[in-house]
Amino acid sequence: MPPTVFIVSDGTGITAETFAHSILSQFDLKFRLVRVPFVDSYDKAYATAEKINAAAIQEQRRPIVFTTLVDTGSNEILKGTQALVMDMFQSFIQPLELELDTKSNHAMGRGHGNADTEEYKNRIEAINFSLAHDDGQSNRSLAEADVIFVGVSRSGKTPTSLYLAMQYGVKAANYPLIPDDFERGKLPTALYDHRSKLFGLTIDPTRLSEIRNERRPGSKYAAPENCRYEVNEAEAMMRREGIKWLSSTHKSIEEIATTVLQEIRLDRSPY
Amino acid sequence: MPPTVFIVSDGTGITAETFAHSILSQFDLKFRLVRVPFVDSYDKAYATAEKINAAAIQEQRRPIVFTTLVDTGSNEILKGTQALVMDMFQSFIQPLELELDTKSNHAMGRGHGNADTEEYKNRIEAINFSLAHDDGQSNRSLAEADVIFVGVSRSGKTPTSLYLAMQYGVKAANYPLIPDDFERGKLPTALYDHRSKLFGLTIDPTRLSEIRNERRPGSKYAAPENCRYEVNEAEAMMRREGIKWLSSTHKSIEEIATTVLQEIRLDRSPY
Repeated sequence: MPPTVFIVSDGTGITAETFAHSILSQFDLKFRLVRVPFVDSYDKAYATAEKINAAAIQEQRRPIVFTTLVDTGSNEILKGTQALVMDMFQSFIQPLELELDTKSNHAMGRGHGNADTEEYKNRIEAINFSLAHDDGQSNRSLAEADVIFVGVSRSGKTPTSLYLAMQYGVKAANYPLIPDDFERGKLPTALYDHRSKLFGLTIDPTRLSEIRNERRPGSKYAAPENCRYEVNEAEAMMRREGIKWLSSTHKSIEEIATTVLQEIRLDRSPY
Repeated sequence: MPPTVFIVSDGTGITAETFAHSILSQFDLKFRLVRVPFVDSYDKAYATAEKINAAAIQEQRRPIVFTTLVDTGSNEILKGTQALVMDMFQSFIQPLELELDTKSNHAMGRGHGNADTEEYKNRIEAINFSLAHDDGQSNRSLAEADVIFVGVSRSGKTPTSLYLAMQYGVKAANYPLIPDDFERGKLPTALYDHRSKLFGLTIDPTRLSEIRNERRPGSKYAAPENCRYEVNEAEAMMRREGIKWLSSTHKSIEEIATTVLQEIRLDRSPY
């Protein structure tokens, strides 16, 4: 039976869970994860402590608890349970208080997804922008874009654009490079006014063919020789036009986004 | 001058930065954040250490370093700098090794955005699904949806759907409730086959009117009385049809997603 891991937070618990996940993935074991979000009162802390103790009895072993509760009293309630309690916040906040010679404000639910902030509004606006400027749908207000991705169909432009918008409030447009462009030997006209914002994505033709075949099996669009042609032409065009680019073949949208943020010097905080 | 904070990671540094951000937001201070991703060799660790020491000299104070490096040798290089080094991984991994009576595998870049996993492919597939099923665009393969959001236009359905897809690989479709539906007094027909998957979003009419006015200033669509009418009708319909719903007025997509995951019992790990 896999060890039970509770992730207790006064907010959504998303930051805590992502972090706990990174740590747990260092072990070649399976874990049973129980996320307990919105623990923002003593009542809820006591209810959580009961759940933890019940798991300890039932499984006859100490559960593991990651907590990012900011409230000291609630944290103490958890520390009274039959569990290995790892306090993700206080471990770092106490040394920081010493170093900075200042007290932390013990504010709950900060730093992640607060809907009533300017930062949050910017993210939602960026998502709307990226959706409206997906796949070359619109040239309107392209000047507002922070970055414009170009690349052949299915090279990863759309998910990368949405990820940058959602996580960083980056207004990311994207434009497909299509056979028409290759025949003309030129980028889509609308892009020439925004060359400094262009960023290319390319992809291994064999992988591209696989991806396109899932969408349109047996089509010319998905055929290996067509994919090779499009990718070659797109790369040649990006080289000719001096557009920075990278290959998405083995890269996740997180990895592409991190590289792009460094390149376009738009390195912003996630929220 | 704000203290400089380095966030050093062997991967994208996104998990580390999100977590550091939560911790730093507990202080009413400004910080200068420097993210140093992809530190996956001794050479890069030494180069990072030089940067940290240069900052210490220039600013005449110890920088703060958050590291999630898994490699012990590289971590030691950072610990030799003139900085307060907070080791986010080892702080938790060592007690876990004891508790679980097993060694961690010290694998780099795990747990976040690895493009070559089944989990990652599911996320990309979910993004494509959610885009194809945005705003009632398609009834095809609605049976594959994990959740179908309903609500008036601009109640937050699209960003929430995309967030669930991107972070959790949840296939989230969404359907607008429009005046035609209210006149008929019925949900869009296609939805009756999937009632158990429906989840409603509502919003305060005054806030809705503000949001719609940004899009279409002075329109009937954005008028306060129209927004009140639509929201009332939508809420009445959701009540009548027994659809669970929540208000997005003061909730971020993270908060909505967390609640929805609990409701639909689809609580999955983020990565």
